[in-house]
Amino acid sequence: MTKYWSSTVHRLDPYVPGEQPQDQPYIKLNTNENPYPPSPSVIARLKDTAGEKLRLYPDPECAQLKQAIAHYYKVSSKSVFVGNGSDEVLAFAFLAFFESDKKLRFPDISYSFYPVYCSLYDIPFEKIPLNAALEINVEDYQLSNGPIIIPNPNAPTGIALNLAEIESLLEANPDAVVIIDEAYVDFGAQSAISLIGKYPNLVVTQTFSKSRSLAGLRCGFAMGNENLIEALERVKNSFNSYPLDQFAIKGAVAALEDEDYFQEMRLKVITTRNRTRAALNKLGFKTLESSSNFLFISHPKFPAKNLYEQLKSQGILVRYFAKPRIDNYLRVSIGTDEEMDRLLSVISGLVSA
Amino acid sequence: MTKYWSSTVHRLDPYVPGEQPQDQPYIKLNTNENPYPPSPSVIARLKDTAGEKLRLYPDPECAQLKQAIAHYYKVSSKSVFVGNGSDEVLAFAFLAFFESDKKLRFPDISYSFYPVYCSLYDIPFEKIPLNAALEINVEDYQLSNGPIIIPNPNAPTGIALNLAEIESLLEANPDAVVIIDEAYVDFGAQSAISLIGKYPNLVVTQTFSKSRSLAGLRCGFAMGNENLIEALERVKNSFNSYPLDQFAIKGAVAALEDEDYFQEMRLKVITTRNRTRAALNKLGFKTLESSSNFLFISHPKFPAKNLYEQLKSQGILVRYFAKPRIDNYLRVSIGTDEEMDRLLSVISGLVSA
Repeated sequence: MTKYWSSTVHRLDPYVPGEQPQDQPYIKLNTNENPYPPSPSVIARLKDTAGEKLRLYPDPECAQLKQAIAHYYKVSSKSVFVGNGSDEVLAFAFLAFFESDKKLRFPDISYSFYPVYCSLYDIPFEKIPLNAALEINVEDYQLSNGPIIIPNPNAPTGIALNLAEIESLLEANPDAVVIIDEAYVDFGAQSAISLIGKYPNLVVTQTFSKSRSLAGLRCGFAMGNENLIEALERVKNSFNSYPLDQFAIKGAVAALEDEDYFQEMRLKVITTRNRTRAALNKLGFKTLESSSNFLFISHPKFPAKNLYEQLKSQGILVRYFAKPRIDNYLRVSIGTDEEMDRLLSVISGLVSA
Repeated sequence: MTKYWSSTVHRLDPYVPGEQPQDQPYIKLNTNENPYPPSPSVIARLKDTAGEKLRLYPDPECAQLKQAIAHYYKVSSKSVFVGNGSDEVLAFAFLAFFESDKKLRFPDISYSFYPVYCSLYDIPFEKIPLNAALEINVEDYQLSNGPIIIPNPNAPTGIALNLAEIESLLEANPDAVVIIDEAYVDFGAQSAISLIGKYPNLVVTQTFSKSRSLAGLRCGFAMGNENLIEALERVKNSFNSYPLDQFAIKGAVAALEDEDYFQEMRLKVITTRNRTRAALNKLGFKTLESSSNFLFISHPKFPAKNLYEQLKSQGILVRYFAKPRIDNYLRVSIGTDEEMDRLLSVISGLVSA
């Protein structure tokens, strides 16, 4: 009965997110969520939002949230776009900036939603291989002048580029949009936001899901030249007038207002990450240098797939990708210190067996 | 600097939603919101949702909500799709079912987002004129076998088709998908949900925004043959894994559980609508027979645009469309009895002047 499906549906190979078990008491280190709750002031604001006014539509412009983001990052409100998580922001951006006539380039090992968006909109792409150390080599993107999307830090490696490297990408590709996907930037990489005034082809995307502990709320944003933001608004307003509900708008604003809490939680995750990495190294793991809230690890003797399964059977969920080049790696999100101690204890038992 | 825009962005003419003033104390009868708050049990559930677990992603499958909808409407869970408002559901459906090779048909006077979706995805369309009484003539859709979308009741007229008329559309167009957009169905029209088992080409969309007073939450859904629902899932999972946040999922489930409140509020709106219509008729207005939570009205002597402006200046917002055939009509959402008394008092002054 596929006669009712459009050709688009026929060609799709949808993205599969990490497992979200709804009931089991797993230690959940598989989808890069923050182990700490949102700020108490965010939760209080959200409780206040649960009221009579839910009968009304949210502000379709999300003016209050755009102003809060603009104020926080010291840009103009017209340089800010907000969406239902950075996934929706990226979905709009692919349609707004990428075409069927020029190949989009991104790393061969990267966020696996990128080729899915390309399939959705029929955008040709070229995967540029990471080097043997699983790092992005920016020179590889300077050979032709065209669109690029790169996560910084990259996922699932966690490795970051510095700002000079990002700038070299922007300079080498002035005729096409370059998206820097900064979902994990708050855990140790340099943001490219400072460059949006200088490069009219730069779009930076971020999210409230990771560093601000609001994955359950769905709020992401983009920053860039006003002309690029206008393109995103046009696509959004041709798709859904109100993708952010009243909770997402109010909660995200409250999150930006509690800077002390944000800094404290961000630094806690970084501290736990660095400690966990050192402990894993001692157990014989190869661990990549991470600027994110996860570690990408591999053991010379114990296959990653087996470790994934054994960890799961002992109540610890991590992410395993059955993909070329990385099928002997595990991506381990950073949990609380107690959760990482439990991980280290279990994994130590597995690799000493 | 439009060199960075895709051809899609260049051709877009985005949808403009009704005004959402953020501060002024208007009587707001312009966007068909429910004048009554969500059920107290919904608000309580939403307050409970504002907690520590917001750090986690929502269930990408929204299994709990799909089960609740399936149970309520007595269909299988696999016949249910959920999205961020019925606008997002429709956006996915246009991409999933409509193609560039066959014209989509819808009424010339209808929900003005339909041609916007067509522009977004480059889908050709044909507007089928309503008759002189602004009614849909189903025979007009039986001349060719192709895709159709029709709101039932229609907007902004409020006029409904009966189930036999809907069935005749489905029978006349067996080779293409027919979407019945039931955003307003709970205010007096017959739902086509009972037909989804019989017609593999039928998709019915509904929303929690109107009859369940949750416009601020963003939750809509579609029902249809499992094969059609699978197409929607494929598109959604190629766009955004989690368009419904934890609040939307929990709040919508709670709304379905409070049937008494739903019936009470729905009937209150219907009663107020009928009373308001009778009063407007007495003032010399022509009012269309409405099965929705709004009235579409016209006065033989007083131009609608002037009335819109004068009502706004007196603190009452209604919707005016500067479009052919309906530029002498106003769409008036049904508010509380007090709000409608105020409207009747002000409008009586205007048309007696």
